[in-house]
Amino acid sequence: MKMPSFQVYNGGVKLFFGINVIGNAEEFIKAYKRILLVTGRRSAKISGALDDVTSILDKHGIEYTVYNDIVPNPIVENVEGIVKAYKEFGAEAIIAIGGGSIIDSAKVARLVISGGGSVVDYLYGRKPYPEKLPFLLAINLTHGTGTEIDKYAVVSIVETKEKIGISAGYPNVSIDDPRYTRTLPRNQTIYTSIDAFAHSVESATSTRSSPYTWLLAEEAIKHIVKHLPRALEKPDDLEARYWLLYASMIAGISIDHGVTHIGHGLEHVFSGFNPKLPHGAGLAILYKALLQFFYKLDPEVMARILKPLDPELKPRVEDAEKAQKAYNKFLEEIGFNESFSTYGFSIEDVKEAVKFYYENEKMKRYHGLAPKLPSREDLEKWLTSLI
Amino acid sequence: MKMPSFQVYNGGVKLFFGINVIGNAEEFIKAYKRILLVTGRRSAKISGALDDVTSILDKHGIEYTVYNDIVPNPIVENVEGIVKAYKEFGAEAIIAIGGGSIIDSAKVARLVISGGGSVVDYLYGRKPYPEKLPFLLAINLTHGTGTEIDKYAVVSIVETKEKIGISAGYPNVSIDDPRYTRTLPRNQTIYTSIDAFAHSVESATSTRSSPYTWLLAEEAIKHIVKHLPRALEKPDDLEARYWLLYASMIAGISIDHGVTHIGHGLEHVFSGFNPKLPHGAGLAILYKALLQFFYKLDPEVMARILKPLDPELKPRVEDAEKAQKAYNKFLEEIGFNESFSTYGFSIEDVKEAVKFYYENEKMKRYHGLAPKLPSREDLEKWLTSLI
Repeated sequence: MKMPSFQVYNGGVKLFFGINVIGNAEEFIKAYKRILLVTGRRSAKISGALDDVTSILDKHGIEYTVYNDIVPNPIVENVEGIVKAYKEFGAEAIIAIGGGSIIDSAKVARLVISGGGSVVDYLYGRKPYPEKLPFLLAINLTHGTGTEIDKYAVVSIVETKEKIGISAGYPNVSIDDPRYTRTLPRNQTIYTSIDAFAHSVESATSTRSSPYTWLLAEEAIKHIVKHLPRALEKPDDLEARYWLLYASMIAGISIDHGVTHIGHGLEHVFSGFNPKLPHGAGLAILYKALLQFFYKLDPEVMARILKPLDPELKPRVEDAEKAQKAYNKFLEEIGFNESFSTYGFSIEDVKEAVKFYYENEKMKRYHGLAPKLPSREDLEKWLTSLI
Repeated sequence: MKMPSFQVYNGGVKLFFGINVIGNAEEFIKAYKRILLVTGRRSAKISGALDDVTSILDKHGIEYTVYNDIVPNPIVENVEGIVKAYKEFGAEAIIAIGGGSIIDSAKVARLVISGGGSVVDYLYGRKPYPEKLPFLLAINLTHGTGTEIDKYAVVSIVETKEKIGISAGYPNVSIDDPRYTRTLPRNQTIYTSIDAFAHSVESATSTRSSPYTWLLAEEAIKHIVKHLPRALEKPDDLEARYWLLYASMIAGISIDHGVTHIGHGLEHVFSGFNPKLPHGAGLAILYKALLQFFYKLDPEVMARILKPLDPELKPRVEDAEKAQKAYNKFLEEIGFNESFSTYGFSIEDVKEAVKFYYENEKMKRYHGLAPKLPSREDLEKWLTSLI
């Protein structure tokens, strides 16, 4: 299949997609004299993205410094670190090179840089957003989060164990180059792809879903089911990476419009409890029980978008179990064998998580986004089966 | 099928789609004290949209005046009229209620209002765009142009017979309510739907096309082929109108990303020569000869998106004629029997149009957007067959 380079305009972001599209960032970067780079410890280097960026910066004599102290499932302190580094360096713009943790942290840091106050002010919605934010270029290195094309960001508060998603504003410019995802480790390849899968499912079944999110979800899942096994077999298969990145990007447009609901809400509880649980792994595990519930919420849409997992699925409630089996089989085939025990969760932890999900004020924002909430008893039963 | 109300964020526009979504405009409108309404002579009234808008304006005591002197295939003078009316009234914002002519004229007027100079300065790209434009709410009354969701506008210069499309900026907020399209006359129902069809085909085959525009085009054409006959049979069929409007809107996202090429370039020549030729009618006629050329440009994409016209189409050059026949048959079935003669064009006019298309400087912008240009001889032969 052809693999053209192209642009996408979603909300306030101009995204360049394709092989070798980094050159398109030059015209935006060169307007600044001092830039803060926010990166992971390894990924920016081994993917080749950091070298590509610094070549452009050096060519134009732009001063830069690197902040790379970000943990996965990023916390308030990461954002504060970016804000401090930005101010100390006297930066005028940010280039974030990485996956969801890096880009999300940079998104929230922009609010604090321009609007002052504390990170928690923005997470709790206690402070109005500033009108103008510093320029942010997001160079995305994973095919999962969609954060490079959407307005959302997720940050955890360690003390309260809350992992909070907010609408933080779009990057100004984003780069999605499949070349940079060829060095993704095997487990990250799985986690991020399942994250994009979950974005598709939830944005197509939420109370804000639409024909547009159904369409995007259907297309994204088609490519994930087809190309994830190929990327696992041959990690540097550029065609497989192109389509996985495309799937993740359009699933990002889909959540930007249709949002997420119970799956992401619950996952945020679990990785808020244990930040070592990667977001995509948490979702992959949760979906081993939740997918059938989602199917029952909207059999018509679910049958349509899950066809690649099982072409026999019919738009009827009775097929929920069949859909669940097809998903679980897919996980087995790609070699995903993790469960809650993998991350040390006990039955008590799961009960605590369900309680937290139903009772914590900050989690309630997810409740209205699902067409229906499962009963606490049902949810507890399903999730304890995942230990 | 479910018909949810939803929002779309494409580029700088926030679009509300669905039955009775006008209420969503209230929060944006009420920030202004004096608003210029730009409308058609009849459509805003008979669709019910004008009443819906003035109810909101009256509720908040907002002063308004109506400018309704816009011709189809709008000309420079229409834009100047809007600018004058805006300034004389001391307006702070514009609400455009209508189809492409109304909304496009308002889009270009915004440039002149903020940036000064003449309309032609902007059409010829001689003047830089102003940074801040007046607020524009676009209430779309047809299922064709996609201008409510894209950044383009088309305006004609009478003296030079040029019809010029420019990137004029997005409306701030748009309303797509299928209720307002139920009063579209039969011929407009056809013309606008074929316009959306042409947007789909061209944006999926241009040099800027992408997997995203292929996807949107496929979906739009599916709904046009299915629902246009229904809307013609029963004009107030709200379900048919919902899906035609949805098709037009996503075809609008598609041209915003993938642009148009030869079909629109040529149509602009013909309706520049004779402004009585409705844009969609011009396209419908041209496609009776051009569709097979487009098919040959990209059989893989064309076979995919034209499946609803003929499920037997294969992704090979030899099927171009088959695709052409399927399109012509569809036109017959919906009762479209117009040709160039309907609008008084002679063989000489067609030759003149082809010459104009190849030689006029302003038309050359279209040439590079098609993967390949037909030879002048071929084009002349094809188009004279349409008289």
